[in-house]
Amino acid sequence: MSRPPARDLTPLFDPRSLAILGASATPSKWGYWLARSALKGLKRRGVFLVNRRGQDILGQRTYRSLGEVPQPIDCVVISIRAAGFEQAVDEALAAGARAIVAITAGLGETGSEGRAIEQAVTEKVRAAGAVLVGPNCLGIADTISKLDLASTEFGPGSIGLISQSGNLGIELALVATDAGVGFSRFVSVGNQADLDVTELIHAYALHDPTRVIAVYAEDFHDGRDLAEAARRAHELGKPVILLTVGSSRAGARAARSHTGAIVSASVAVDAACLASGMLRVGSPREMIELAQGLLMPHPPRGRRVGIVGDGGGHVALAADKVIQAGMALPLLTDDVAAKIRATLPERAATRNPVDLAGGGEDDFRNFERTVRALATSGEVDAVLLTGYFGGYSQESLDFARRETQVALGMANAVQESGLPLVVQTMYPASPSIRALRSRQVPVYADIESAVHVLARLAEWSELVPWGVPAMPEPASPGLVANGYFEARDLMGAAGIPFVDATLVTRLAEAKAAANKLGYPVVLKALGSSHKSDRGGVQLGIDGDRALKTAFMEMTSRLKPQTFSVERMAVSAEGVELIIGARRDPSFGPVVVIGMGGVYAQVLQDVAVALAPLTQKLAVGLIRSLRGAPLLVGARGHAALDIDAAARAAVALSQLAAERQDIVEMEINPVLVGKEGVLALDARIVRMKGGA
Amino acid sequence: MSRPPARDLTPLFDPRSLAILGASATPSKWGYWLARSALKGLKRRGVFLVNRRGQDILGQRTYRSLGEVPQPIDCVVISIRAAGFEQAVDEALAAGARAIVAITAGLGETGSEGRAIEQAVTEKVRAAGAVLVGPNCLGIADTISKLDLASTEFGPGSIGLISQSGNLGIELALVATDAGVGFSRFVSVGNQADLDVTELIHAYALHDPTRVIAVYAEDFHDGRDLAEAARRAHELGKPVILLTVGSSRAGARAARSHTGAIVSASVAVDAACLASGMLRVGSPREMIELAQGLLMPHPPRGRRVGIVGDGGGHVALAADKVIQAGMALPLLTDDVAAKIRATLPERAATRNPVDLAGGGEDDFRNFERTVRALATSGEVDAVLLTGYFGGYSQESLDFARRETQVALGMANAVQESGLPLVVQTMYPASPSIRALRSRQVPVYADIESAVHVLARLAEWSELVPWGVPAMPEPASPGLVANGYFEARDLMGAAGIPFVDATLVTRLAEAKAAANKLGYPVVLKALGSSHKSDRGGVQLGIDGDRALKTAFMEMTSRLKPQTFSVERMAVSAEGVELIIGARRDPSFGPVVVIGMGGVYAQVLQDVAVALAPLTQKLAVGLIRSLRGAPLLVGARGHAALDIDAAARAAVALSQLAAERQDIVEMEINPVLVGKEGVLALDARIVRMKGGA
Repeated sequence: MSRPPARDLTPLFDPRSLAILGASATPSKWGYWLARSALKGLKRRGVFLVNRRGQDILGQRTYRSLGEVPQPIDCVVISIRAAGFEQAVDEALAAGARAIVAITAGLGETGSEGRAIEQAVTEKVRAAGAVLVGPNCLGIADTISKLDLASTEFGPGSIGLISQSGNLGIELALVATDAGVGFSRFVSVGNQADLDVTELIHAYALHDPTRVIAVYAEDFHDGRDLAEAARRAHELGKPVILLTVGSSRAGARAARSHTGAIVSASVAVDAACLASGMLRVGSPREMIELAQGLLMPHPPRGRRVGIVGDGGGHVALAADKVIQAGMALPLLTDDVAAKIRATLPERAATRNPVDLAGGGEDDFRNFERTVRALATSGEVDAVLLTGYFGGYSQESLDFARRETQVALGMANAVQESGLPLVVQTMYPASPSIRALRSRQVPVYADIESAVHVLARLAEWSELVPWGVPAMPEPASPGLVANGYFEARDLMGAAGIPFVDATLVTRLAEAKAAANKLGYPVVLKALGSSHKSDRGGVQLGIDGDRALKTAFMEMTSRLKPQTFSVERMAVSAEGVELIIGARRDPSFGPVVVIGMGGVYAQVLQDVAVALAPLTQKLAVGLIRSLRGAPLLVGARGHAALDIDAAARAAVALSQLAAERQDIVEMEINPVLVGKEGVLALDARIVRMKGGA
Repeated sequence: MSRPPARDLTPLFDPRSLAILGASATPSKWGYWLARSALKGLKRRGVFLVNRRGQDILGQRTYRSLGEVPQPIDCVVISIRAAGFEQAVDEALAAGARAIVAITAGLGETGSEGRAIEQAVTEKVRAAGAVLVGPNCLGIADTISKLDLASTEFGPGSIGLISQSGNLGIELALVATDAGVGFSRFVSVGNQADLDVTELIHAYALHDPTRVIAVYAEDFHDGRDLAEAARRAHELGKPVILLTVGSSRAGARAARSHTGAIVSASVAVDAACLASGMLRVGSPREMIELAQGLLMPHPPRGRRVGIVGDGGGHVALAADKVIQAGMALPLLTDDVAAKIRATLPERAATRNPVDLAGGGEDDFRNFERTVRALATSGEVDAVLLTGYFGGYSQESLDFARRETQVALGMANAVQESGLPLVVQTMYPASPSIRALRSRQVPVYADIESAVHVLARLAEWSELVPWGVPAMPEPASPGLVANGYFEARDLMGAAGIPFVDATLVTRLAEAKAAANKLGYPVVLKALGSSHKSDRGGVQLGIDGDRALKTAFMEMTSRLKPQTFSVERMAVSAEGVELIIGARRDPSFGPVVVIGMGGVYAQVLQDVAVALAPLTQKLAVGLIRSLRGAPLLVGARGHAALDIDAAARAAVALSQLAAERQDIVEMEINPVLVGKEGVLALDARIVRMKGGA
């Protein structure tokens, strides 16, 4: 089924009338919770409870069937057993429903029979111009339209949440409540038979009250479509935060058992984030913490942090974390330090970090004065307040009132200066902290969280999504087999320069080839075993005798059908890279560029992107490697030809994008010299069933 | 002042009588809070409030001076201005005090005058056989003896806390309360004029109710003494968790402004942890989370984790985190999986991770059954429960009762099996979770925390502290200057083999030396500039003409007084290491071993330990490098002579320990071959004022 054009989701998120199929009077049942939640919206819409027994529920009359309901229904929630699901959908559509929320489980997630039912139902729903959420979902909510069809309360706010796991949706709601942020909309997408994550990202991007989009997904359907939706949302000023699983094989095992979806490999998700500007996180807490940061009025536009606290331990700890996160703690100039010192005790530290050294306890307004001085100094990009602030409110109502005034003063100071303030406090539940949160100042209980969010936002402020590359016309699969020389030929034809090599079978041919190339040469035993760690490659063969020895030894040990005799590349001044591509089931061709050599492989120094690459992106990927200093000419090394290495990566990425029959391809290594590159080995893996 | 022998701290932690000097009736003052807290112990001890005005405080009569108090006083708390401090100590000792808690600030932390007062006071205190905490401290507490002299309440429990920052002590108290763990003792050490962190670690190690020792320190005094105290505590079954600052220079800047202490470099702290078994953490939260784990009855003894949850999202996320943390998720055998499946719905995943798939909601006892089946399977080392459990208690009292029963059943199951259970829950405040915590099951709100603690405990279970090495007799500083040949001679005499080299001044000498050594040779321009990144080293000179060119070029560019002509070492099959040593102000000589080569330096692949090393420790350090696979013979590489590399490191470490005049020394690189090693360069930095 191809994606339908953008659809009107108003009947889903703000129906004029709503029916619950499977409403129940039993408090332990889903149908009871749903009815109770739905009735909260009675002022805004008609809510009709349908129950075959017809007994009253929560003081409301019920109907024995949808047909009995006296008016057309915009949205129908289906919470009945799987056996009656298809019929229920028919009845809903007959009753005029433009939206269906299918709680019912036991369909697509159980096997092919269930998937067939889902497919049939989806076709009917689309034919009727309606939309369907689920099945196997935990409900939806819209805090603007007072629509609550979820088992947990989602507090009002600006986060649009899309979750493939109902329980993680609940966890996110709870964590957000603690953090003082809330939601515009929530959808538990379930099996995504019709409405999927991608369509919801598109919809949320155009939904004014939604300012940040939070996604938990296990299954990406068409990952490039999803990435493109996220990129568009980013462009519209709605950043997308992504939490996913499956970076471990065991994680993937669990996800399969959960939704039957094949989880995309973690590395492909990273590539999609680079293309789209999605912000990937590792846990529900990190998701909400980052959302708090994204919702503040003025996220940081640089990495210079000014730290304020009343106590040396807290400011020292914060300083450590800031430096560890790769941000800077500029020493403040005399002027700024003098301004800060004016109202503080003599023992205060005023150069950054600023330790009020009791000056905050003496007079709470010193917190505000110092934050304001930093925010208007022009010498920092963000202010980080850490430690005890928030705790004075514990002492008395008068202290609480005065601390809250100071909190609002700090919020004003940073609002006026256009700089961000991020707060770590030992007392996150304090009224003064509530005041800060009401002004969109992000507050965290942990210093790691506060600093981590600052660092991610500074990085994010510099981020320009590379875009989701268009796929080229598929190329003919051609007649290329999996062999080494076929791989060299294919990549060579794409413009990647390879080291001279001759295919030989017998020793005499090998000697002739070696003498023509000139010693020293490399001998490779071809077949599946020419990898260096199996001893199928001998470097630095310096004459006929050594060639014979190597040839005989490999012949007896590996029994290869053919050999390659190759010129020995001189690598004294060059650096080796690995350039590869892999076709991901969800995200399509993904390119990987890494530092070569055994040491680099041990450390997995790699960068990834969706194929095909542009030259600029390829250069950017190479420069992002931790080992990049070796290529750019640092530490007395010569500057190497990064442009040529990037051209090789672009060529390989184009090939990977065109050739749908190729699952994996790799050049390992490619030697990057001062001028140009030279590919020293190649490998291609084609689809099973390919030629 | 040298350390006094172990002293009796009973008068400090459980005084029979207590006086507060500077008690106040004004609720915003320290002297008021102290009096209020101290009076809570009235049932156990006499508490006498001293205030010059003599007004009643909190309904208690006060005394105008200590002399008026009608009985001897075990412990005196001094909370008055700095000007009267010395006299107050005199009065306290005269009144019979064996312990003094000095809250008074404005002494040693402000400069030399204050430090002189502290020193004089400390001498008097020690002469009187008493102990003194502080000055500039925030108080102490002992929950066993009901002694509360801190501004925050420390709940009862098994953590012994020592903090150099009062506010961080308060934060730790608050975080611990949230986590359901508590404290045996707390000391805010302040300026450590008399009683210091090290003496308190010794005391806590022998204090029965203390089971875990938590330390926040900025200033280590004699770091080796502290490490030895921690090692002894570890041996006595009392692990020491250490939080410190100063891993950034900016952090050190703040710490200096805080206590006047020079913060030990972060790397030396790591070396002390390796020697002592101290567990280093990065934040207050991590400290409490790790303490929770250490307090459980059966910490894990391996890395195989069994995951249980009721929901695919949570178990998949947990599985990802477990794999990322370097632990294993073994696939359960048919037998165990069948046992688990017996009472679960068909759609449940039972191979690990175990997803109850609604089976937990159907019957809470399925949580207990599954945890028990895993704990007794013999196929995992720890059980991790994740997700919704704890949330059922929200629904009704009946649910809360049943969920709590199941919680206790799970605690029993793991208690009986001797395996650890670690829990992540969305509902940490639930009564069922309280029940788990009452049975020392560690519960976390975040999956990262739960998995991180499991991984650290698994690592910890394998940890054998290397011990704090004894320092050898100091060697005579000798006449060694800072020059290259002097460094070679000193290290060579210590048994480290160096590449052949000849010191030359003129070109003719250089040619003669090169011809004697045999080409190719290396030419180094000596002086401060022989580093390769300044072009002072030319490798691979293959004949007289090339030597002349290099000699003339370096002469004109660098103007060195002398040169070294050296044999060119063949490094084709070898790997380069860096071996160095640095004398830390707190921890003494520390050895650093790292992978050599520019790439490794970019990535800072290093291991550290206190000098001198044993051969076994040196081998262990080398094997702990991320690049170790290159040395041990992995991936088709030859196995190299790690023993010889370790011998060189031992020799250097011995030299570093003996020669107190040497601040830094380094061999960079040392080439490790299949047989033996060869040092290719050397450097020594002596103390300023050294010969």
